Amino acid sequence: MAKELKDLTKRSENYSQWYNELVVKADLAEPSSVRGCMVIKPYGYAIWEKMQHELDQMFKLTGVQNAYFPLLIPKSYLSKEASHVKGFAKECAVVTHYRLKSSPDGDSVIVDPEARLEEELIIRPTSETIIWNTYRNWISSYRDLPLLINQWANVFRWEMRTRLFLRTAEFLWQEGHTAHATSEEAQAKAIEMLNVYRDFAHNFMALPVVTGVKTANERFAGALETYTIEAMMQDGKALQSGTSHYLGQNFAKAFDVKFVNNENNLDYVWATSWGVSTRLMGALIMTHSDDNGLVLPPKLAPIQVVIVPVYKNDEQLKEVDAKVAPIVANLRSRGISVKYDNADNKRPGFKFADYELKGVPVRLVLGARDIANNTIEVMRRDTLEKDTVTLDGIEDYVARLLDDIQQGIYNKALKLRESMTFKVDTWEEFQEQIEKGGFILAHWDGTTETEERIKELTKATIRCIPMDAPDEEGVDMLTGKPSHRRVIFARNY
Amino acid sequence: MAKELKDLTKRSENYSQWYNELVVKADLAEPSSVRGCMVIKPYGYAIWEKMQHELDQMFKLTGVQNAYFPLLIPKSYLSKEASHVKGFAKECAVVTHYRLKSSPDGDSVIVDPEARLEEELIIRPTSETIIWNTYRNWISSYRDLPLLINQWANVFRWEMRTRLFLRTAEFLWQEGHTAHATSEEAQAKAIEMLNVYRDFAHNFMALPVVTGVKTANERFAGALETYTIEAMMQDGKALQSGTSHYLGQNFAKAFDVKFVNNENNLDYVWATSWGVSTRLMGALIMTHSDDNGLVLPPKLAPIQVVIVPVYKNDEQLKEVDAKVAPIVANLRSRGISVKYDNADNKRPGFKFADYELKGVPVRLVLGARDIANNTIEVMRRDTLEKDTVTLDGIEDYVARLLDDIQQGIYNKALKLRESMTFKVDTWEEFQEQIEKGGFILAHWDGTTETEERIKELTKATIRCIPMDAPDEEGVDMLTGKPSHRRVIFARNY
Repeated sequence: MAKELKDLTKRSENYSQWYNELVVKADLAEPSSVRGCMVIKPYGYAIWEKMQHELDQMFKLTGVQNAYFPLLIPKSYLSKEASHVKGFAKECAVVTHYRLKSSPDGDSVIVDPEARLEEELIIRPTSETIIWNTYRNWISSYRDLPLLINQWANVFRWEMRTRLFLRTAEFLWQEGHTAHATSEEAQAKAIEMLNVYRDFAHNFMALPVVTGVKTANERFAGALETYTIEAMMQDGKALQSGTSHYLGQNFAKAFDVKFVNNENNLDYVWATSWGVSTRLMGALIMTHSDDNGLVLPPKLAPIQVVIVPVYKNDEQLKEVDAKVAPIVANLRSRGISVKYDNADNKRPGFKFADYELKGVPVRLVLGARDIANNTIEVMRRDTLEKDTVTLDGIEDYVARLLDDIQQGIYNKALKLRESMTFKVDTWEEFQEQIEKGGFILAHWDGTTETEERIKELTKATIRCIPMDAPDEEGVDMLTGKPSHRRVIFARNY
Repeated sequence: MAKELKDLTKRSENYSQWYNELVVKADLAEPSSVRGCMVIKPYGYAIWEKMQHELDQMFKLTGVQNAYFPLLIPKSYLSKEASHVKGFAKECAVVTHYRLKSSPDGDSVIVDPEARLEEELIIRPTSETIIWNTYRNWISSYRDLPLLINQWANVFRWEMRTRLFLRTAEFLWQEGHTAHATSEEAQAKAIEMLNVYRDFAHNFMALPVVTGVKTANERFAGALETYTIEAMMQDGKALQSGTSHYLGQNFAKAFDVKFVNNENNLDYVWATSWGVSTRLMGALIMTHSDDNGLVLPPKLAPIQVVIVPVYKNDEQLKEVDAKVAPIVANLRSRGISVKYDNADNKRPGFKFADYELKGVPVRLVLGARDIANNTIEVMRRDTLEKDTVTLDGIEDYVARLLDDIQQGIYNKALKLRESMTFKVDTWEEFQEQIEKGGFILAHWDGTTETEERIKELTKATIRCIPMDAPDEEGVDMLTGKPSHRRVIFARNY
């Protein structure tokens, strides 16, 4: 068994440590020497690339185009939108100088005090301000609308406590920024993009998510409404996985972006923004993986199928090589990514453990005896079930198995979420349940005061008011005040 | 005629102004409010995305994997490699603080003086230092080599004089960083990647480039050898379009990256790095475009074919719509991107000028008379030639035409370069020719002194010593000292 695997902490022992170790051991990412910044390693980046590719296609189908805006934002822009500055100004990386020079002793470099910027520049924590400052020149009439633009970029927020993928100072993301002629259209767009995120999570990440609306307290700084997709991790904690914001006219007013509407009146433009980030990697890892390592959904796995030969001598290896070649070719012709690992400097057992750790969905093992029997050993990573099947039509079998695994891990995650979602009506019950984890559907009186008091007392936050929450009369657990629907409480990452 | 087009400066009047205007009028990019930084607009970004996609595939075929390293680099890293710091330290954006706070009057934000970093961070001008600092932990044995990694990223160099795409403070690029067990392997890799750039330029950008070696004076800061692809613009000036560096053991020594080689000895690792950037957009635009606007190679054009209907009434439009639908479907099934522009708020003449400005390679125009005659009008953007051809098999015709255009603009650019490449043997001739532009093949005595003197006197630099430069004895034009081969001199962007 590979050393890396043997050392992996079990989820039941320490879920948090299991995650931290797994990210590093599976070669996904590692901390860098720059505080709070990570290095995304090739295997981790390959998964992120697949996510990007699928999301990008989904965005484009909705009419969105990509563009690129500057990394640096003049400091004064941040304070143009009153609530935005409160949310972002505190955690910024600030560029104050534009030149270094040799130190007097010549051995190092120092900041050149003469190269001080007149106005400091901020590394974007998000790009609403610089983008709306640009949109002012792009929009003058309703004919210029809607403007549907997305950017793939790095952003920076000076986080004090960081964790690989889940919370890092620098992270990679996409941020969509759309401009519309009416409030209705902008609101509809915000929800449309939320649904794109939901569909991506379901269909590619095999991640069941709840869609909902954030409370005023949890809104994006500058938004009138924030929509969210919330996922449940295996420890019952929530992970906010993507948000979509209806911004009203806040940024248009802050940056003076007006247009002539079709009634020939001047009005401010209506806006949305929406984003998902490398945080999705954290959600993916935490949702499906187990004590043996990663479990990846086939649709996002860099290697979908690995084939390992078992042999005693060169002659047997040649025989296996010959048998495997057409299988590899056939699978690749179906767009399935296959690795045939016949490297002879590692034993099969080591390879098995390593590919388990890396979450390769399907493993095929072929030896001399299999060839004699016209069979092959198949293992599916999600359940670790092994099966010996006929070589005839093995490619169809594998293709179906990949679909099965994709669906299977979604169903498993959904089942977990359902089994850990509870309706709670009393404060006693709530306090007890929140310690055990899970989503709690409870009544809430709608005030920020109560929300914050519950957070103080239990560390639970309102994750969202679900989009499909049925009307139901009830009373707040804590205050006894009336409530018209249940919201989701949980502890969260 | 579209206003934008009418206003475009002619190349013969002012080539430089023509370029600046074209980039903005064709909606490729625009200056941002942040000094030296550009906004890449959707149409420009769509071209860059296609470049990225093709390059990325070509890199992966050579075994390269993508990864991601931090945006910020500790200041001290820059001075670890002696020549590197000289090349990059002067033009850096320096992060000194990590927090803003409200100003005393509450109306704006100011830098929090208490949030000063112990060590300043630099926005990466290039990533050798942070990457080699990371490689130290990834490499211990020859079995870990070669390490072949690429990063798509933004970088920042505080340029004083900027031009859209050609020289901007922030730009997008890829940077490959490979590590090898032997000098020979690293050198071969540097040349392999240079050839990838050459092939990409030729086959996708339709850009004939000369491959060569830079003189010591023009090397990348920290390299033992810099290879380059040099293109000629229509004004006869050179544009360095991509570079590949053999770094020897310089960065391994600076960051203490050692490995156990296959003879069980400890040695420093050998390195390459190589990059192309959004500067390629500048090369693309300047090489092929004309006084009517952009000319794009079909393989990188976001829209390859535009179809414009000509009609007098709704009935005619419906007839054209019906005729066009199967053509669009057929072309798309071949992977050709087609736009059918039947918007009725713009006249055909406006559309024609606009798509010419945007460089759409093929324009089809269909009207009632064409349908009666079973014909269609075809215009190719590169030559502006119009032809009326039969509708039968129009899709084959268009597919062939796209190939013709791709090859045609390459041939045209190559012919221009050949007609503007001169062998020059005397200093008088050189001074005269350099004023007229073009590549000058001349003898050079191999010294930095002579190279710099020629630059001072004529603004011409040695672009490269061509890879295929034949041995030829001669004497330096200026000093009369012996030379063994001709090098390429030119003025450059």
